[in-house]
Amino acid sequence: MIIGIDVGGTGIKSGLMDMDNNLVFDQSRPTGTTQEEIVNNLAEIITELEAKAKNDFNTTIEGVGIGVPGVVNKGLDHVFKCPNLGWNDIPLTDILKEKTSYTAYLDNDANLAALAEHYVGSLKDVDTGVLLTLGTGVGGGIIIDGRPYRGGNGLGLEIGHMIVGENFYDCACGKNGCYETFASATAIIKHYEKMLKDENKTIDVEVTAREVFDRAKAGEEMGLKAVDRYTTYLALGIVNIINILDPEVITLGGGVAASGDFLMNILNKKVKENLLVKGFPTATLNYASAGNKAGIIGAALLAKEEIAK
Amino acid sequence: MIIGIDVGGTGIKSGLMDMDNNLVFDQSRPTGTTQEEIVNNLAEIITELEAKAKNDFNTTIEGVGIGVPGVVNKGLDHVFKCPNLGWNDIPLTDILKEKTSYTAYLDNDANLAALAEHYVGSLKDVDTGVLLTLGTGVGGGIIIDGRPYRGGNGLGLEIGHMIVGENFYDCACGKNGCYETFASATAIIKHYEKMLKDENKTIDVEVTAREVFDRAKAGEEMGLKAVDRYTTYLALGIVNIINILDPEVITLGGGVAASGDFLMNILNKKVKENLLVKGFPTATLNYASAGNKAGIIGAALLAKEEIAK
Repeated sequence: MIIGIDVGGTGIKSGLMDMDNNLVFDQSRPTGTTQEEIVNNLAEIITELEAKAKNDFNTTIEGVGIGVPGVVNKGLDHVFKCPNLGWNDIPLTDILKEKTSYTAYLDNDANLAALAEHYVGSLKDVDTGVLLTLGTGVGGGIIIDGRPYRGGNGLGLEIGHMIVGENFYDCACGKNGCYETFASATAIIKHYEKMLKDENKTIDVEVTAREVFDRAKAGEEMGLKAVDRYTTYLALGIVNIINILDPEVITLGGGVAASGDFLMNILNKKVKENLLVKGFPTATLNYASAGNKAGIIGAALLAKEEIAK
Repeated sequence: MIIGIDVGGTGIKSGLMDMDNNLVFDQSRPTGTTQEEIVNNLAEIITELEAKAKNDFNTTIEGVGIGVPGVVNKGLDHVFKCPNLGWNDIPLTDILKEKTSYTAYLDNDANLAALAEHYVGSLKDVDTGVLLTLGTGVGGGIIIDGRPYRGGNGLGLEIGHMIVGENFYDCACGKNGCYETFASATAIIKHYEKMLKDENKTIDVEVTAREVFDRAKAGEEMGLKAVDRYTTYLALGIVNIINILDPEVITLGGGVAASGDFLMNILNKKVKENLLVKGFPTATLNYASAGNKAGIIGAALLAKEEIAK
């Protein structure tokens, strides 16, 4: 049995995956604040899950995989940087080995989500695919030759910071024009709020991406405008990815992806209109399907792969 | 000995490469206009080079590789489309096999230029690298895991058509904002010409990228403005590539690359300023070094690799 752990900014999700890639148990707890606290939480989770595997499933732990929201070295044992956790240069595998005796394999969480999609989700049997996670920001993972593509310097892939134009607000990274300022959930919220402000209007509910999509579906003019701009830029970035990587499948994850056919129909049309070469096989769009536990599954799959080497 | 052929819009370059990857003979002739004429030229070149290998080098031909400016299928034997040659759906390998008895391997010319750089040029010993060819347009080839990356649908990579902003003129592809409308030689020429027009000025020589760079080096204000905008966008696209692919090396080919240290110094500064994460290993920039015969060498290397399989 394999332990998979997905460290997020606010919560740590973890679970047990059997050797047939089924998640048989999962749980969640707050991440913690200081580095020491978070690391102790991780060690505790491993010890708990080891006991759980023994008591409930009468089996042992074969490996431990951990996804982190940041940059990991090529050796998969050292965290260079996790901005959201305030982590810099942490030999996490060594620390956890001392605390638990297990050797944990580490990777960027977006890579692991893509790996989960490749094994059990929307990128199954796909050699060359891209996962775009549309949430607070835009993240991404790339599968090439059926393997997570980690880049040449292990720096992690930052598709959300591809510059695609000029925007009315700057990205959190300090630059203007990043893809995620057009194509994230935050982006559509900010655009809708700007239109409200420009027209001196208010609405009596919180502006969320879901709310804006619902208003567009109901035919509200401002909602339609927001969705139109959002999908135009989302498609633009997707066509950029097609022009650079020509993947077989591009799969969309994150909250916005819950917009279903309404979003997908518009998107397919706008992508098709903007293809450079028409009439040739080109990337299929679909939604990520490994679910919100993809991070746990991906982490466990990483460990399973690494121990099989 | 291997025959390498590089089919361009105006000329066909061809040559003989020995089994140690040395180009021992090369030549050039006009491409021709009709499909029949071009194909006959290719067959003639193969027959001539076969005789040349026999008479001058006392050896036989082990393989034939051909680079074309367009889209080739995954089987490397069928040309889907070469816009510049007016080619659509040509079973080129079969046709040439009938005419010459040799089985030619086909690939996109940018992929083959990247392959040449990987074997004998600026991407030697590089696992993950990108070649950007800055000429009339912007082309590109990607090396991943030491192999040319051909995408998931064999559609060819079109980095030059990545949208990066809004421009004052449309791309030949019909869209606005393509990278090549900012970062090609054509781009800097059009910008300089626009500034001349806006200020009702003329110059007594042809506006070329070289001329604009020379004027900038000499301190001319308009030349400096053109180079500043050019390098800002060139750097922007390079940073996009870093954010998406994180290659070890990005190498610049094409005419503009002849601008040497003057361009490279500005570019390194602008790329560094725009990196998302500073202080980590990131792509090195250099100039392509396989020379203007890289297309021939790449084509021969393709054939050498394929026959070794």
